[in-house]
Amino acid sequence: MYVAALDIGGTKMAACVADARGPLLRLTQPTLRSGAPDAVAQQGVRLIDACCLRLQIDPAAVRRVGVSSCGPFEMRDGVLGILPPNLCGGLANGDDLPNDWTFLPLESVLRERFATVRIANDCVAALHGERAFGAAPANAVYVTWSTGIGFGLCVDGHILSGKAGNAGHAGHMLLSDTSDALCGCGNRGDLEGLIGGRNFGKHLGKPLARIFDDAKEGNADALAVVHEAARWFGRGLYNLTAILDTEAIFVGGSVWRHNEDVLAPLVRQEIASRFPALTRGVSVQGATLGELVTDMGALALVTDDAWTPAWRAGRVWEGVCTEVIG
Amino acid sequence: MYVAALDIGGTKMAACVADARGPLLRLTQPTLRSGAPDAVAQQGVRLIDACCLRLQIDPAAVRRVGVSSCGPFEMRDGVLGILPPNLCGGLANGDDLPNDWTFLPLESVLRERFATVRIANDCVAALHGERAFGAAPANAVYVTWSTGIGFGLCVDGHILSGKAGNAGHAGHMLLSDTSDALCGCGNRGDLEGLIGGRNFGKHLGKPLARIFDDAKEGNADALAVVHEAARWFGRGLYNLTAILDTEAIFVGGSVWRHNEDVLAPLVRQEIASRFPALTRGVSVQGATLGELVTDMGALALVTDDAWTPAWRAGRVWEGVCTEVIG
Repeated sequence: MYVAALDIGGTKMAACVADARGPLLRLTQPTLRSGAPDAVAQQGVRLIDACCLRLQIDPAAVRRVGVSSCGPFEMRDGVLGILPPNLCGGLANGDDLPNDWTFLPLESVLRERFATVRIANDCVAALHGERAFGAAPANAVYVTWSTGIGFGLCVDGHILSGKAGNAGHAGHMLLSDTSDALCGCGNRGDLEGLIGGRNFGKHLGKPLARIFDDAKEGNADALAVVHEAARWFGRGLYNLTAILDTEAIFVGGSVWRHNEDVLAPLVRQEIASRFPALTRGVSVQGATLGELVTDMGALALVTDDAWTPAWRAGRVWEGVCTEVIG
Repeated sequence: MYVAALDIGGTKMAACVADARGPLLRLTQPTLRSGAPDAVAQQGVRLIDACCLRLQIDPAAVRRVGVSSCGPFEMRDGVLGILPPNLCGGLANGDDLPNDWTFLPLESVLRERFATVRIANDCVAALHGERAFGAAPANAVYVTWSTGIGFGLCVDGHILSGKAGNAGHAGHMLLSDTSDALCGCGNRGDLEGLIGGRNFGKHLGKPLARIFDDAKEGNADALAVVHEAARWFGRGLYNLTAILDTEAIFVGGSVWRHNEDVLAPLVRQEIASRFPALTRGVSVQGATLGELVTDMGALALVTDDAWTPAWRAGRVWEGVCTEVIG
């Protein structure tokens, strides 16, 4: 038996095919931005078929697909689709995109090809991965801090979905009442507007990686920006801890991954400075599945439970062959 | 079969005994603030026994108790207790209380008397009540806006508990980065610090009820205070909607109950002004179980499921005989 995973992001898409041994091959490609609204889902199907071709597997042998996708989600006519602001040119703030999309069908397209289709927000999928193969306990948060900031939330062992699969959009939680930092969703002063990778430290006129380098060398302006970003991130994580009574927080995404050494102590300190009855013992750590966490999460949605112990023991997310195609 | 409910608040406690017909009698009493740390739980047992005495029921016939209690909760030695800042004189800010309590045992005391003990935060209990007997759908929030602000959260039909039963402390969510409004938990600028019933409009030097009366008569200063409070409340509810993908919000508590006409449109407007993909169709309404919502919630924790349809149809929370004892 084979299963497939599809990871749909605003800039790139990844497909992966796995069997009992683990992921066999992973192909990535820039996400399409033109054509009919079903172009993105059709691209996903073709990318999975391309995996099969390279692996010399009959595509018909892949009957189950797990999808991790950027959101937000919306149910239309009983099936799930997405309306991501960074892909849909027909939505507010989408003027620079070469399409007039307002809604991208996913589930309807994938159901024509696969017998089983399971779709989750990318961070919700990542948390499924951390639960199945990593170290997440029953009350855990997964957060990715990169261009955007997204969350997967697990409470009492149940990964939250919400009325349309949108639970975890905590990057759009309002934190500041005075900041004019504008988020893609239209909010001013929400977490992503304040410290999404494209948004913070802009007044220094340097790339973010440079700001972190300068901060590590003791530059006062860069240090101030990094400290403030860590404080906002910590306030956001404290809010989730107070709301959900979380035990452990796992962080992924490029901003965190490249700067965990400087960010982690500051973030932990911000959380620990709040209401001890709620924050005592809460841990903050890097994602245990590394860069393949969303792919592994999409796989976790459709793998056979019997595979899990071997995948976990073999750390199968390490060293998966990834190929970038045109 | 009889069941009991206990509602433990910072100022008063209520006990209630019910059978298949519904709640039979409700007794309330000021919550004890002195003695040994188990005084509060022991008072609860006595209050239930007093209900039995008045109803001429053998206390031994009551084997199940549902408890709605103020929090926060903490597990110690595997059993649940509470450390509420407004009851525990040994905690920070508790100097004016006639005790040095830092932790009140609940579960251990109640287990000595009852075969089944189920304990939930008061707002979590209220949401259990709204789910069992009221109108709450699978993705719903219950919030009480009175002196404090507390929440019960339901996602995908599952009422959230968290690692120690503290899910729903969203009143301690930070919303303002500039306000110096101090909350009992030590935060500045959290939801409860900003607009808990004891905290907002203080600069007008009038009781809150008077501020709302003045606002209804068009007084500009009072109107500004009410509008600002509604905006904060709406921002808090928007945050929860973005985090949990909520469908319906039920509001109880004295601040809301007495001023729903003026607050509801402002709060709805604040939520609707945010990220449409997340807020479209979200409803905000008063609690359907009225003033007995937490008592009914405590009962919902231990009632026989077979009783539910009749209780719901008979609206048994209306007209329950309540007696205040010394």
